[in-house]
Amino acid sequence: MAKQPQNAISPTRAEDFPEWYQQVVRAADMAENSEVRGCMVIKPWGYGLWERIQSQLDAMFKATGHKNAYFPLLIPVSYLEKEAAHVEGFATECAVVTHHRLELKDGKMVPSGELTEPFVIRPTSETIIGAAFARWVQSYRDLPLLINQWANVMRWEMRTRLFLRTAEFLWQEGHTAHETPEDAMEETRKMHGVYETFLREHLAIPVIPGEKTEAERFPGALNTFTVEAMVQDRKAIQAGTSHFLGQNFSKAAGIEFESRAGQREFAWTTSWGVSTRLIGTLIMAHGDDDGVIMPPRVAPTQVVILPVTPKEDTKAAVLEACDKLASEIRAQSFHGEPILVEVDDRDLGGGVKNWEWIKKGAPLRLEIGPRDLEKGSVAVARRDRAPKDKEFLEAGSLAGRIPEILQSIQDGLLERALAFRNENTKRIDSMEEFRSYFTPSNEEKPEIHGGFAFAHWGGSAEDEERLQKELKVTIRCIPTSGDLCEEEAGECVFTGKPSARRVVFAKSY
Amino acid sequence: MAKQPQNAISPTRAEDFPEWYQQVVRAADMAENSEVRGCMVIKPWGYGLWERIQSQLDAMFKATGHKNAYFPLLIPVSYLEKEAAHVEGFATECAVVTHHRLELKDGKMVPSGELTEPFVIRPTSETIIGAAFARWVQSYRDLPLLINQWANVMRWEMRTRLFLRTAEFLWQEGHTAHETPEDAMEETRKMHGVYETFLREHLAIPVIPGEKTEAERFPGALNTFTVEAMVQDRKAIQAGTSHFLGQNFSKAAGIEFESRAGQREFAWTTSWGVSTRLIGTLIMAHGDDDGVIMPPRVAPTQVVILPVTPKEDTKAAVLEACDKLASEIRAQSFHGEPILVEVDDRDLGGGVKNWEWIKKGAPLRLEIGPRDLEKGSVAVARRDRAPKDKEFLEAGSLAGRIPEILQSIQDGLLERALAFRNENTKRIDSMEEFRSYFTPSNEEKPEIHGGFAFAHWGGSAEDEERLQKELKVTIRCIPTSGDLCEEEAGECVFTGKPSARRVVFAKSY
Repeated sequence: MAKQPQNAISPTRAEDFPEWYQQVVRAADMAENSEVRGCMVIKPWGYGLWERIQSQLDAMFKATGHKNAYFPLLIPVSYLEKEAAHVEGFATECAVVTHHRLELKDGKMVPSGELTEPFVIRPTSETIIGAAFARWVQSYRDLPLLINQWANVMRWEMRTRLFLRTAEFLWQEGHTAHETPEDAMEETRKMHGVYETFLREHLAIPVIPGEKTEAERFPGALNTFTVEAMVQDRKAIQAGTSHFLGQNFSKAAGIEFESRAGQREFAWTTSWGVSTRLIGTLIMAHGDDDGVIMPPRVAPTQVVILPVTPKEDTKAAVLEACDKLASEIRAQSFHGEPILVEVDDRDLGGGVKNWEWIKKGAPLRLEIGPRDLEKGSVAVARRDRAPKDKEFLEAGSLAGRIPEILQSIQDGLLERALAFRNENTKRIDSMEEFRSYFTPSNEEKPEIHGGFAFAHWGGSAEDEERLQKELKVTIRCIPTSGDLCEEEAGECVFTGKPSARRVVFAKSY
Repeated sequence: MAKQPQNAISPTRAEDFPEWYQQVVRAADMAENSEVRGCMVIKPWGYGLWERIQSQLDAMFKATGHKNAYFPLLIPVSYLEKEAAHVEGFATECAVVTHHRLELKDGKMVPSGELTEPFVIRPTSETIIGAAFARWVQSYRDLPLLINQWANVMRWEMRTRLFLRTAEFLWQEGHTAHETPEDAMEETRKMHGVYETFLREHLAIPVIPGEKTEAERFPGALNTFTVEAMVQDRKAIQAGTSHFLGQNFSKAAGIEFESRAGQREFAWTTSWGVSTRLIGTLIMAHGDDDGVIMPPRVAPTQVVILPVTPKEDTKAAVLEACDKLASEIRAQSFHGEPILVEVDDRDLGGGVKNWEWIKKGAPLRLEIGPRDLEKGSVAVARRDRAPKDKEFLEAGSLAGRIPEILQSIQDGLLERALAFRNENTKRIDSMEEFRSYFTPSNEEKPEIHGGFAFAHWGGSAEDEERLQKELKVTIRCIPTSGDLCEEEAGECVFTGKPSARRVVFAKSY
């Protein structure tokens, strides 16, 4: 048996949250930095989680009438330029392709074959998809056009962090075109709702659905809706956004149609996306000082069976019992899918394997050894409880109980995250209180502090910028539904101006 | 009713095969050229086919022990340079990223922020994945390492054709590392076999599995295995390849491990891939003068139900019957998956809709109208038969018969393609015959001619090059299994040198 550490991850969350995060990603073997600046390698356990997220979201998109398609990776610079706010938003951080071959010169391969017009690697695809939509849409009969793309995108970020902010990332981007602004707004809100549901029900993350202020909108959008998660250092993460683009991009790309009245009109478009950032959000929301905790619905392996084989003469019987249990569990379903179970029969110490799965966050670990065989029991360990906390359950009826145990873990994670967020959300009515809430008491080593401040706001974009500079705090959203969506007249804590509702402030990733 | 054309696609295959192909892709609404040179937009029906191909292949890869991961899009030029043959093979056609932002200059956005080392957009990932493997592999216990990646890649091709050859394309690339050359060769052959099976059983395309000659190998490989399909203009398409890379890439990237004997050794690696080229192959192999014919196993919609609603008073009953039949069919399974059925209740003429589905190649079209309701029958049209060829089957028992009808279409397509290939494969024993086989009789408008020539070969790489220049013919493969894999001593038809076996020659895409 491997020596059991106090905690598998060092430092702990309380000691150094950012470093804890890096160590968890590493210990769970989910991703690593590559030699390509800001680009990560997503390893099988991390990619397995992305595959689960992808297939479940994809089903939700298809159920709401969307179809997948694929558009070019490269965008002519002239396309970006068509929408002024858009190019301004993305021009300062994009990979530019300028040549189309390499040539040997003084013993070195150098760029050659200069392109007459350079391309950027898509940072997002409104412009290139807009050009296709302009070809596809002629009449109101062609609308709504409901398309989604799963793709890689690239933004040349200066400071990166695995999953949360990387130069290249994987995402989905929905792009739709509609006859009327009402239809487009309904679509925007619908997908906003899909994200909220997915985060809550699948990732066990309670998010605040809301609208962004003008300063925080997507470049080129008329409205941006967001789902904001709180993670365990009490910062916010923008987990998914949906944009009402008005006619900005349809005018830029020429998405025109003949209306029911026989007029030429520009379509009303939307876009919406979530990315591999969800993985970072999940880790920061649920992880503990022993590593990742995977919500059962998206875990790449939901149940791991660990054979305990101290003696050669009972080994075969133990392995057989493990395989039998695995088949019984595989025959069960969880949310309409067969349960993902793995027998880890690698020739490694039981302690080493157990800790590996703890760090990876597999929801359930089952151990079967010779004594369990005699007693007809299985040692069941839940990842949402302490590592040593085992329950001995009857082997014969265990498989049938697995779905309910997984659901209980799923529910527990959501409850815990919700309680945490509620504990760290505060109504604030004065500037003094606001400032002290967001100011670490220990200057040398900023400890975890703050949370969500729920306060009145009547300021301008300039006030927002000042707030961000001074306290590193931004308006995360103006809640549009849920607990925090309420009308209440008050006064802006910063400017004293009248305010119709409180908004959510936080530091953020 | 729309006027029924003689054929839906003009020109026909016999009239102008390349143009027929472009028109089919367009008529089926599968893809289109974008304004980005050589890059296509894959439209929902084309992408739907790719999703089916992807999920079925992915299951086969996972069943053979592979896991998916994701690696950076950009490759430092210095990585490519590490393997001499590799950089030579790809340097002349790659997109080069040289800058990381745009800047406004004289009213125009121009590249700015020059990178100290340029990157290429991956044309294939041996080098960047090799760098990761070098980090991951320390001991023989870490082997075999069996990884697959689904990704976009880019090669700056001069002449492109939708799906068959595009600058950007989607593919999967398997990359594995092994302890011994035998293990690596076994893996190479195993995946060669997976491709052969997939093409035959899923795409209904009989391929010739074989080995490439040295001249046709992947840049940097010691052996390249291929599956070669014949399409209806009797040309060959290389549909998938698997490469035994020896230690070339492990030496370049430093994939070293401690062997069982305690020595430092370089791993033995493989790579293998198929791409969206499979879609072009499928269309050219099965399509007819009315459009695409989708093999049922991969069709995005396997059964389409077309309500015939000439009168308002029977419309509701017809639609209800269609929905009922759709649910019954959905409850059936085909190769372990629920059958994909769609009721096309769009408010369009029945003829228009019927022809749309013919052009798209949906395997089965079912029509229900008021008269069918009275008689309790359904008009069933198979895509592998003539457009007007309908069979009236009893509505009550139809759903249960759908799987067998789909299988019969699937089998029929394979048989037809196999018969076609056999008819157009010829044993050739003289240079004269060889030359005449591959020379069009009509010089002005080269009609469809040639096929697979199965002839003895004892030439050199230079002889191959001459053959390609003179007749545009290449050695497609040296068969490694199947009908054409036979040992037979003979004399090379070109050089008269002794030969131990015949090889397959053809013109190709």
